[in-house]
Amino acid sequence: MNEAPGRREPADATTVRPPMRDALVGAAFQLFLERGYEETTVDDIVALAGVGRRSFFRYFPSKEDVVFPDHERCLADMTAFLDEEADVQDPVQRVCDAARLVLRMYAENPTFSVQRYRLTKKVPGLRAYELSVVWRYERALAEYLRRRSTEARADTLRADVVAAAVVAAHNNALRSWLRSDGTKDAEAAVDQALGYVQNTFGSTSSAPAPAEPARTGAEDVVVVVSRRGAPMWRVVQEIESAFARD
Amino acid sequence: MNEAPGRREPADATTVRPPMRDALVGAAFQLFLERGYEETTVDDIVALAGVGRRSFFRYFPSKEDVVFPDHERCLADMTAFLDEEADVQDPVQRVCDAARLVLRMYAENPTFSVQRYRLTKKVPGLRAYELSVVWRYERALAEYLRRRSTEARADTLRADVVAAAVVAAHNNALRSWLRSDGTKDAEAAVDQALGYVQNTFGSTSSAPAPAEPARTGAEDVVVVVSRRGAPMWRVVQEIESAFARD
Repeated sequence: MNEAPGRREPADATTVRPPMRDALVGAAFQLFLERGYEETTVDDIVALAGVGRRSFFRYFPSKEDVVFPDHERCLADMTAFLDEEADVQDPVQRVCDAARLVLRMYAENPTFSVQRYRLTKKVPGLRAYELSVVWRYERALAEYLRRRSTEARADTLRADVVAAAVVAAHNNALRSWLRSDGTKDAEAAVDQALGYVQNTFGSTSSAPAPAEPARTGAEDVVVVVSRRGAPMWRVVQEIESAFARD
Repeated sequence: MNEAPGRREPADATTVRPPMRDALVGAAFQLFLERGYEETTVDDIVALAGVGRRSFFRYFPSKEDVVFPDHERCLADMTAFLDEEADVQDPVQRVCDAARLVLRMYAENPTFSVQRYRLTKKVPGLRAYELSVVWRYERALAEYLRRRSTEARADTLRADVVAAAVVAAHNNALRSWLRSDGTKDAEAAVDQALGYVQNTFGSTSSAPAPAEPARTGAEDVVVVVSRRGAPMWRVVQEIESAFARD
């Protein structure tokens, strides 16, 4: 996972860094900043980079993709990291570490990341693209957490909530760093943000389990686990639904 | 906030339900189901509804918008609900209640909601549209939580994380209901899901503040074991005495 700073080839590329791809990204951003995103065509980009249209589309399916040249690679890195056979004591810690890979990708190229942040805020289509990428990161984290748990309904709920919390904390730190024009300490910001999630949901936290009553093997016994601070109506509701279940 | 079931006019409309708008939605979905979304044009929709193109665009900026005719209204309802001068003891409870407005919108029209769910899964453009709507709900909740807190960095982090957790829990319940073809009890599903978030972050929870050390969980959890056939008063008594214990 320790990729060298500045590497930006797609996940399926060889380990040789393709200079043409970098040249296309550089030309695209030069034009986006000079003329605006909407006003720049793929033809403009390839003309400035001195390559043909086919070269562009070999690397990027669309003009939007050249704005986010590293996400596919980072998603692949994240998936590989989560698939690793590791002795994971705390899955929440693991998904926090997976999120750090995304932060690192941004922090490796502060100037580029800040330029893109400003561009994305101005162009609704790019914002939508970014949301769909964020959603894929979140799904990767949630899928991992689901695999690490049993198939109970309550566990899919917990997986979804924890994954969303991790992504929200990561993005809070990332935005704070981008707004500082990349001058703040990105690692410190994300450590603090993910530390909060870790404290709330991690294995050493006091997080309550989702309110699905755990059942013992015997049919006639119901076990309800509840936080001491829970309101009584909530506990009664929980028990009533547990009793009502077949 | 108690809107009558089936009302689907935009936020800025009068309280009279516009039949033409409903007719356009009905015609659009009939065609989407028969021919597919991509294969249906706005011209096809207005021809079936027996109205002109201008009528379509009076209600919907684009073909995508006719797929989600209620979200603008629901976003406006949510914002109004959060802006209400209410004696709010627990802002987390308040954002959970705000999320329930979205669930109610879906639950009011099960057939329509299930059809749209299937359609959205098949069309990437609609999925992206939906993500941008979800993001707007999440921002509305986070903005409310930020307003309710001081301006400290840790509070913006907490607001973002709680808003994301509420949205994730809501969507977990919503998807579970949609996958049941709208046959499950939507309210019960969302109560269970939001109850988890409430227990984790609400004012009666033991959730740690950001960047504070996590508390130990030992004294915060009560386990009650009861026979399924036990009378409810007996169970409640048992829990009350367990909660009272130090």
